[in-house]
Amino acid sequence: MTQRAYNFTPGPSMLPLPVLRRIQEEWLDYNGMGASVIEISHLIPEFKALLFETEDLLRELLEAPANYKIAFIHGGGQMQFALVPLNLIALKPARKALYVETGLFATRAIAEGGKHATVEVIASSQDTNFDRIPAIDPAALDPAASYLHITTNNTVVGTQWRDFPRTGGLPLVGDLTSELLSRPIDVSRFGLLYAGAQKNLGVSGIAVIVVREDLLAHGSPMLPKMLNYTQLVRDRSLSNTVNTFAIYVANLMLKWVKASGGVRAMEANNQEKARLLYELLGRHEGFYHLHAQPGHRSAMNVTFRLNTPELEAAFIAEARAEGLYALKGHHEFGGIRASIYNAMPLEGVRALIDFSETFVRRHG
Amino acid sequence: MTQRAYNFTPGPSMLPLPVLRRIQEEWLDYNGMGASVIEISHLIPEFKALLFETEDLLRELLEAPANYKIAFIHGGGQMQFALVPLNLIALKPARKALYVETGLFATRAIAEGGKHATVEVIASSQDTNFDRIPAIDPAALDPAASYLHITTNNTVVGTQWRDFPRTGGLPLVGDLTSELLSRPIDVSRFGLLYAGAQKNLGVSGIAVIVVREDLLAHGSPMLPKMLNYTQLVRDRSLSNTVNTFAIYVANLMLKWVKASGGVRAMEANNQEKARLLYELLGRHEGFYHLHAQPGHRSAMNVTFRLNTPELEAAFIAEARAEGLYALKGHHEFGGIRASIYNAMPLEGVRALIDFSETFVRRHG
Repeated sequence: MTQRAYNFTPGPSMLPLPVLRRIQEEWLDYNGMGASVIEISHLIPEFKALLFETEDLLRELLEAPANYKIAFIHGGGQMQFALVPLNLIALKPARKALYVETGLFATRAIAEGGKHATVEVIASSQDTNFDRIPAIDPAALDPAASYLHITTNNTVVGTQWRDFPRTGGLPLVGDLTSELLSRPIDVSRFGLLYAGAQKNLGVSGIAVIVVREDLLAHGSPMLPKMLNYTQLVRDRSLSNTVNTFAIYVANLMLKWVKASGGVRAMEANNQEKARLLYELLGRHEGFYHLHAQPGHRSAMNVTFRLNTPELEAAFIAEARAEGLYALKGHHEFGGIRASIYNAMPLEGVRALIDFSETFVRRHG
Repeated sequence: MTQRAYNFTPGPSMLPLPVLRRIQEEWLDYNGMGASVIEISHLIPEFKALLFETEDLLRELLEAPANYKIAFIHGGGQMQFALVPLNLIALKPARKALYVETGLFATRAIAEGGKHATVEVIASSQDTNFDRIPAIDPAALDPAASYLHITTNNTVVGTQWRDFPRTGGLPLVGDLTSELLSRPIDVSRFGLLYAGAQKNLGVSGIAVIVVREDLLAHGSPMLPKMLNYTQLVRDRSLSNTVNTFAIYVANLMLKWVKASGGVRAMEANNQEKARLLYELLGRHEGFYHLHAQPGHRSAMNVTFRLNTPELEAAFIAEARAEGLYALKGHHEFGGIRASIYNAMPLEGVRALIDFSETFVRRHG
């Protein structure tokens, strides 16, 4: 086996080694059943126990109140860009939805929203290439709207909401795909939050929703059965064959978070990783150019540029040769991006810092 | 490790041991990358190579003509129950779709179809509890319809179409979820065929579509981006983060089929397994009651009943004690079901036959 890399990929992303090893060890015989976990029906008691335990663990770690329902849905975070309006827009007769535009995925959410709702973008940082979280004018929080949608962490541009807007009676919808379980969140601030699993919750293919129950039962009757939040909550994610492997990995990830000290321990570790990395990059500010403004920087995705595309290519290639993997920025955005989700150990960030110091000496 | 069971589960189903072992062996280091296959981005060249190879292998094994496009879609076979009408109904102004009702999943397809189309059920075997494939009156093939939908293998009731209806210019849509790659299929007979992956193509969470290209570009503009066949084909399944693990397993499953002699070798093996099992059950016809009529019986799912529910429960429990796993029929249908997809070895079927003989002697 080659040495395990420090993998800074934005997602599907690095997972904790104990989780990967556990999967490997029990691969041919899940739970003494004489079958791999991917070979068992989603409808048997052994699998349902796993699924419901996963739901319970997530509820516990998020400290989600009892009036919030949890479901796992095929398709990842981006599927929700359409499902949010299809399930919620009828909450108010105006069929209007408010969005904050903070980067690539927020823009895509707005585009999908526009197919099913009258969309109003009430704040945007597009004018400065999404280097900040824009301020919201409280007067823009139209009570006739069905919801306000925000992207709490912006994977491509590397910004993150510190706190979330107070919306009064207007349901706040949050795309937490690239930050779920990385810091404590007050779930009760949201009407609905969702996240694709392939960052801190395991593998690609599913998303989780956490939804306040009074927002259910407003979905379009045209909704396909397995895209209907109300149906999915009622069926406890079993409206059709659930992605069994993704549930299994999510279960192991949640147990790993819990055994590691819970979401607060994740936050402490993530803050330290981000602090060290931003500090190093800031010390060489003529060489490394941080994209996000101070106070808006993500603890999950650290984005910066070098002075020339050639230098960026050299950075990525030389890092890779030292086992620091997948540092290339998003293809629509460019530059360098280090994604440092929960599973990235502090040693990985230290290795990146050491490399970045050396790189300055070599090329500065 | 406990002994590996013969796993007759309807899906997610048994996979070939060489495929499972390969996954286990390279689990911590895919392709020398220092990362698990579930930890790499879907957008890097190494993953795209895997995805496109998977598409090519499927095309080769299905002998799909060049004017057919292939895409992988989140959500499994049942997601297509809605996506077929949403993508195809506008082919004709009447927005009408024809269906054949042959069991539980066909019924669900009809229900989802009815949300988006004027649905006409042109043949049904519901009157005899779906024990046969009903004949189609050629006069019912309304040329004003956008398509005719059939379920080529009926997982719950255990029936299978021998040949497919000749529909002339009317596009034939086939749900091949529980039989794809189990026998040679003339793809050109279909306008669109689809299959959830969790039977012969690997794990749950995705489906594959094979669609004649002239049927594309008729999708509703309201379609979510990642549910739009035309967009998915254009993006080669990368409209959002694809289910990377499912693609990886599909790749290994296709290589296993190819190395085992291709689809014709699968068919020969499947025919032999089904012949032996139906023969044994038929020999004890006062004890075992086959559900499907001769000439309509599935080579994938063998369904039968015993004289009392108690006897069926004993059959399932005693079989399980001998390592014959998951023989319980579908909860909405009851009885016994042995699912014997490609990965079920002949020895597994022989073990079930031996057990079934012994069971007659013990309880007959």
